[in-house]
Amino acid sequence: MTSHLEKIRHSAAHVLAQAVLKLYPDAKLGIGPTIEMGFYYDFDIDIKITEKDLPKIEEEMHRICKEAQEFNHYTKTKEQALALTKHLNQPYKQLLIEELNLKEYSFYENGPFVDLCKGPHIHNTKEIKHLKLLKVAGAYWRGSEKNTMLQRIYGTAFENKEELKKHLVNIEEAKKRDHRHLGKQLDLFSFNESIGSGLVLWHPKGTQLCETIEQKWKEDHKNEDYEFIKTPHVGKACLWETSGHLDFYKESMYGSSIIEEQEHYIKPMNCPFHIMIYKNKNHSYKELPVKYAELGTVYRNERSGVLHGLLRARGFTQDDAHIICRKTQIDIEIKKVLKLCLTTLNRYNFKNIEAFLSTKPSEKFVGKNNEWKEAENALKKALESEKVPYKVDKGGGAFYGPKIDLKIKDAIGRTWQCSTIQFDFNLPTRFELTYINEKGIKETPYMIHRAIFGSVERFIGILIEHYNGEFPFWLAPIQVQILNISTDCIPYCKKIESILKQHNIRVKTDLREEKISKKIKKAIEEKTPYMFIIGQNEVINEKVTIRTKKEISEITSLKEFIKESKNFDKEKN
Amino acid sequence: MTSHLEKIRHSAAHVLAQAVLKLYPDAKLGIGPTIEMGFYYDFDIDIKITEKDLPKIEEEMHRICKEAQEFNHYTKTKEQALALTKHLNQPYKQLLIEELNLKEYSFYENGPFVDLCKGPHIHNTKEIKHLKLLKVAGAYWRGSEKNTMLQRIYGTAFENKEELKKHLVNIEEAKKRDHRHLGKQLDLFSFNESIGSGLVLWHPKGTQLCETIEQKWKEDHKNEDYEFIKTPHVGKACLWETSGHLDFYKESMYGSSIIEEQEHYIKPMNCPFHIMIYKNKNHSYKELPVKYAELGTVYRNERSGVLHGLLRARGFTQDDAHIICRKTQIDIEIKKVLKLCLTTLNRYNFKNIEAFLSTKPSEKFVGKNNEWKEAENALKKALESEKVPYKVDKGGGAFYGPKIDLKIKDAIGRTWQCSTIQFDFNLPTRFELTYINEKGIKETPYMIHRAIFGSVERFIGILIEHYNGEFPFWLAPIQVQILNISTDCIPYCKKIESILKQHNIRVKTDLREEKISKKIKKAIEEKTPYMFIIGQNEVINEKVTIRTKKEISEITSLKEFIKESKNFDKEKN
Repeated sequence: MTSHLEKIRHSAAHVLAQAVLKLYPDAKLGIGPTIEMGFYYDFDIDIKITEKDLPKIEEEMHRICKEAQEFNHYTKTKEQALALTKHLNQPYKQLLIEELNLKEYSFYENGPFVDLCKGPHIHNTKEIKHLKLLKVAGAYWRGSEKNTMLQRIYGTAFENKEELKKHLVNIEEAKKRDHRHLGKQLDLFSFNESIGSGLVLWHPKGTQLCETIEQKWKEDHKNEDYEFIKTPHVGKACLWETSGHLDFYKESMYGSSIIEEQEHYIKPMNCPFHIMIYKNKNHSYKELPVKYAELGTVYRNERSGVLHGLLRARGFTQDDAHIICRKTQIDIEIKKVLKLCLTTLNRYNFKNIEAFLSTKPSEKFVGKNNEWKEAENALKKALESEKVPYKVDKGGGAFYGPKIDLKIKDAIGRTWQCSTIQFDFNLPTRFELTYINEKGIKETPYMIHRAIFGSVERFIGILIEHYNGEFPFWLAPIQVQILNISTDCIPYCKKIESILKQHNIRVKTDLREEKISKKIKKAIEEKTPYMFIIGQNEVINEKVTIRTKKEISEITSLKEFIKESKNFDKEKN
Repeated sequence: MTSHLEKIRHSAAHVLAQAVLKLYPDAKLGIGPTIEMGFYYDFDIDIKITEKDLPKIEEEMHRICKEAQEFNHYTKTKEQALALTKHLNQPYKQLLIEELNLKEYSFYENGPFVDLCKGPHIHNTKEIKHLKLLKVAGAYWRGSEKNTMLQRIYGTAFENKEELKKHLVNIEEAKKRDHRHLGKQLDLFSFNESIGSGLVLWHPKGTQLCETIEQKWKEDHKNEDYEFIKTPHVGKACLWETSGHLDFYKESMYGSSIIEEQEHYIKPMNCPFHIMIYKNKNHSYKELPVKYAELGTVYRNERSGVLHGLLRARGFTQDDAHIICRKTQIDIEIKKVLKLCLTTLNRYNFKNIEAFLSTKPSEKFVGKNNEWKEAENALKKALESEKVPYKVDKGGGAFYGPKIDLKIKDAIGRTWQCSTIQFDFNLPTRFELTYINEKGIKETPYMIHRAIFGSVERFIGILIEHYNGEFPFWLAPIQVQILNISTDCIPYCKKIESILKQHNIRVKTDLREEKISKKIKKAIEEKTPYMFIIGQNEVINEKVTIRTKKEISEITSLKEFIKESKNFDKEKN
């Protein structure tokens, strides 16, 4: 069912195309669908459209809406459809018609504009009242680099003014929170073209952020009886042949690297290595479940066009684990994994968590029907027992097993795909995994892949935007900055620094000979949770003035601060 | 000066060659030098010599020694030397004569045997009384894979019986301690041919060992104000061109891997990445020294023939750091680094530490004479102030700067090269590193590379052999094993497990339905420092029996054990 809002947006896309044709009569039209929060339309125009051109296009759109054009629907045969689009001089539409190869083609017409379109639409352009064009970007025809690069204009529309306004505010907020910008401001990470696109250089503060997150992750996994392993970043071609990666995933891998005439590949996934450790010895049913975990850095050939800071990088660290268990253990293990996901995500203040359960494809799958059924049931039962709202994507599972994907909502309402829990009926067979059952007979175990963050880098990218760089105390790379007003306070600053360090508080002392206002400005830019500004009086009184970013705190003694620091995040949550 | 012992060994090599010629008259002789603990001689023989043949060769050697042959020395012209070796039918010696191309050639003769040799030798073969042949291995003529593979027979000789005996015992002990064998027995790591030679798979217990060592390393470095960074495992060709690796080090790198038509290389070193983080912003003299540290995993193309478990692998983790500082800071920084090396190595009970100071080569070097002088002085002063005995390798420095190498002696007297502290006058220039001095002018900083372990993998290989797998309590991957005698003790075992875990003691509970003797045997094989064997009586009394590998400990209450566990290693040291 298409919602009224979607109809408005889809109709607005037609109005956009009509406006562009009015202003650029030679424009050739690509496609113009709705997307999650709006719509776009692709154009082939000789002139480069910039953001400066958007207001005049928008003005033309408003004019068209006010004209109150009716939407009319009709169908045509293939021949008629080709003739019409030829007459309209729209070659991309002709390509679409050929590609679709239908008996009947659906068209919508409003005012002077007609478009190949399945609909549905609103009745009249006057129903579109609250619209906004947002940006222009390049996009290949049919998404393929081999085709012409078109100009994609993005826009949005809402049913009322308030919602549009709120959305525009969120877009502005998201721009301000861009993790690439904040990453630079907070000196967390950088990319460098001479090292390679999509390869993150973690600076000291970013490394601390990784370390805090990863240490907590390790603690949690230790408590859940995972065993940690460490595997290489390269593996020989034969390994990737057995795993099937060279058949189905080669495009996404870095090219082969040869030593002593043997092809090696940089790993795009950790699974085959974990499997080889399992296979290093025989396993009795008594030892199951085996749960191997690794923060394994993998490398994938993402096209440079789709790279986006930490959110889409070529090198990233999967918080990977593989659970190898018996059929009788899947219910309890899946439930444990889901619980661990929820606890972890809650820790970062992600509370609105939604799940997607993808089930067996109707064709092309490995594994037996009853195995799929049991696995799907385990996933479903876990979601229900943990009360996670979920949608079923029937037939949407990978060929090798059903899965749960978790989506989180950030502080400004955007959703992000995050955790995955995925059965695998493929690799245990390919690699001939076994365990010895009670009767001394070999059986094939169940295998579950799972990741909570997915990618540590991407998760940190999300966190930076989610928190707007203002990390909670426990997570902040630098928790306290000590700033001296004058040089005679230096010994006292160092004393405080040493006391805080003893209490494992991450502290930075800025003793540069600079004006205090300049040092405060820098600490504010760095979004450090607390500043201690040390002046002459305080030295005498053995007291410190503690100034947070926003207010002078009431905590005035160091002892009290250290004591209270354990509760900082509890209060804030 | 050649010591008497070296003369004995070198003469024993000649006796070996004479014995082999007696037994295999068609043998062609390669070279036969002394080595650290003995000697070898290379032979080209059609028949494959095995360890079984060594006793009869050794017997023949003893006979020759008893014959009391005198060593005589004479020289020959090139022509005469070629004629003589042709007459002797020794083509490799002829090749050597051509290669050396001297005016005069030195020969030594004893009994019927004559050899091209610079000497010196003992006077009479009867002086060789305590010798032993040890093993046979393949070795290419002149060390090049392009040449014929010869058979190398290793032996040793000592001045007295006791020293020979002690050495043979040490060799046996070293065989028993072979880390590849213990690594399997303790389930620490494995290699897998389908993953690739020289690539370590760390099993859970091995990963715990790495983690304990690495965490301690991080703590130490944090206390010394190092900042941690994290860098990718691949970098574009242009990076390695700038660094000079593609000109001078390409043979040792994994082959290039291509994505989007760009060559990438798996990193053999971390330096260029650390430099790029430094270069990401401008630095004032106020910020120096910058000390970046990383446990960075690198990959190198070591020939499969030289790979040797963890001691020589293709993938290994450097405990790397780069100190970027001013001239005025080098003395203090070098001293701090050396201190940190010594503290770290002492922690693993390596106490006999020796240093080698390598100074400026006479030709082909970068950097100015006064910079070399200052750097060498800083290294020398640090060694002297820390009272580390050292030898100077005059002219033995790399072309880019002087260095200190530290050698450690393990529990059975073998020495291992370990830490390195190395100046670099090359990379700062190649990468145009700068900082702004007091006058606002750009200057080139000093750069120091340093690693304490060198490679974490190799260091663990050494540790396994050093400790014979019996790690001190703080380092042991599993510190305590709880074994139940009967099923009714299981709840009590779990209770103890949970208490120990709360006190961060690494515990494994073996509740399998097996005979207790079998479980004890397994725990002993795994070399776990402590076993708690839980039986019925103990359950009633709420007491545990603690049995160490060797004795029933006097510690009988759990509380006492936990309290005492903090002192276990102190007592043992």
